Amino acid sequence: MTSTAPATNRAYRRLSVEERRSQLLRAALTLFAHRAPEDVSLDDVAEAAGVSRPLVYRYFPGGKQQLYEAALRSSADALVLCFAEPPTGPPTERLGRVLDRYLDFVDKHDAGFSALLRGGSVAETSRASAIVDEVRRAAAEQILVHLGVPDPGRRVRMMVRTWIAAVEAASLIWLDEDKRPPADELRNWLVDHLLALLAATAASDEETAKVVRGLLALETPSGPVAELGRRVLPMLGDAGHLL
Amino acid sequence: MTSTAPATNRAYRRLSVEERRSQLLRAALTLFAHRAPEDVSLDDVAEAAGVSRPLVYRYFPGGKQQLYEAALRSSADALVLCFAEPPTGPPTERLGRVLDRYLDFVDKHDAGFSALLRGGSVAETSRASAIVDEVRRAAAEQILVHLGVPDPGRRVRMMVRTWIAAVEAASLIWLDEDKRPPADELRNWLVDHLLALLAATAASDEETAKVVRGLLALETPSGPVAELGRRVLPMLGDAGHLL
Repeated sequence: MTSTAPATNRAYRRLSVEERRSQLLRAALTLFAHRAPEDVSLDDVAEAAGVSRPLVYRYFPGGKQQLYEAALRSSADALVLCFAEPPTGPPTERLGRVLDRYLDFVDKHDAGFSALLRGGSVAETSRASAIVDEVRRAAAEQILVHLGVPDPGRRVRMMVRTWIAAVEAASLIWLDEDKRPPADELRNWLVDHLLALLAATAASDEETAKVVRGLLALETPSGPVAELGRRVLPMLGDAGHLL
Repeated sequence: MTSTAPATNRAYRRLSVEERRSQLLRAALTLFAHRAPEDVSLDDVAEAAGVSRPLVYRYFPGGKQQLYEAALRSSADALVLCFAEPPTGPPTERLGRVLDRYLDFVDKHDAGFSALLRGGSVAETSRASAIVDEVRRAAAEQILVHLGVPDPGRRVRMMVRTWIAAVEAASLIWLDEDKRPPADELRNWLVDHLLALLAATAASDEETAKVVRGLLALETPSGPVAELGRRVLPMLGDAGHLL
């Protein structure tokens, strides 16, 4: 009799516990990525996975909240992997590659990303916030590795963390503005933003000044530092009365 | 008989509805400023105002949540007033004064400010978030007035809003770090941050470049722009191989 059952039914039975769990999680991830959590129901997840609602409950007895947090956990881990970049070559090129992967992630998780990071979402439990903070910390640590200061002073830490907040804000605005400007333009601007912030911070903090000297030595004449320098220098003409 | 009642009791009765309401609100404001909302009870508010719990409920039938939102509304209005600054004189001086008032507000509302802006707080209802967003919008509008672009393009708007996010993040870090560095050092660094961001954005956006030219004309040789320029220019020596 088994052999005459419809193919989908057989597939339904054949999955192992682990396979079923990750199938449900994948369905949840896809739904939570492109909709606010309040717009995703357990029935939606069951339907997307082609299973019954009780089966979803068997794997996720905590219901939608548990599924959401499992999906968030899995997305956060994926995002942290995006930050990894070998510490060789011009630092702005490394940063550009990391930002490309990050913006690709933002693009692929648009509505879910917005809902999570905007205040007041039902998604924003303290557990969800703890996961988001973990991602922010991982991002800051990675940047500090590339700046060559694993044990930074207060000013360097504040600089890196405020830039990360600025990147987050820029991502949300980018999503609000129908993903304009194109991702590569946004990436270049975010790189320039960090370069400018490094220069401004180096002006009043010796540790940052040392970091900047180290980074400059690794840059190339065709890279973003040189390009930004060439574009900013002519502005000095407008500041002649100040200098 | 009334004349023999204790003085406090007479004072208790003498307040008008409006006076009583604002007395309760002031008590709530003080409590919510220096504690996370989950650490403030209705009994605390009643005790701080020297009244009974039922009296608090008579004025705020929605209980703690209503009191919290009324306190937040009142704080938000006060903060928005801090942003107002006449559009005359060197722009960096205007910005410095606004930031001084803002940091003073952050200082005086420390725990409440942190609880509200960190994710996952019970304070973070959609109504509370809407009020916070309103304050952010008011801040952005004020900055655009001083930049002389009331109707800005996409890049200028994104620049201003990301800088505001950076200021918020810096404020939270500042509170976490026991309000170090001193507020005036933080203020100077936040001014430098915006100057650097303006320069970096002007490098790739004509509207921002025009804004920068207009601002530079209003600055003085003893102001922050000149100071930052004098400190950043020597770094060009370390970038000789790039330019």
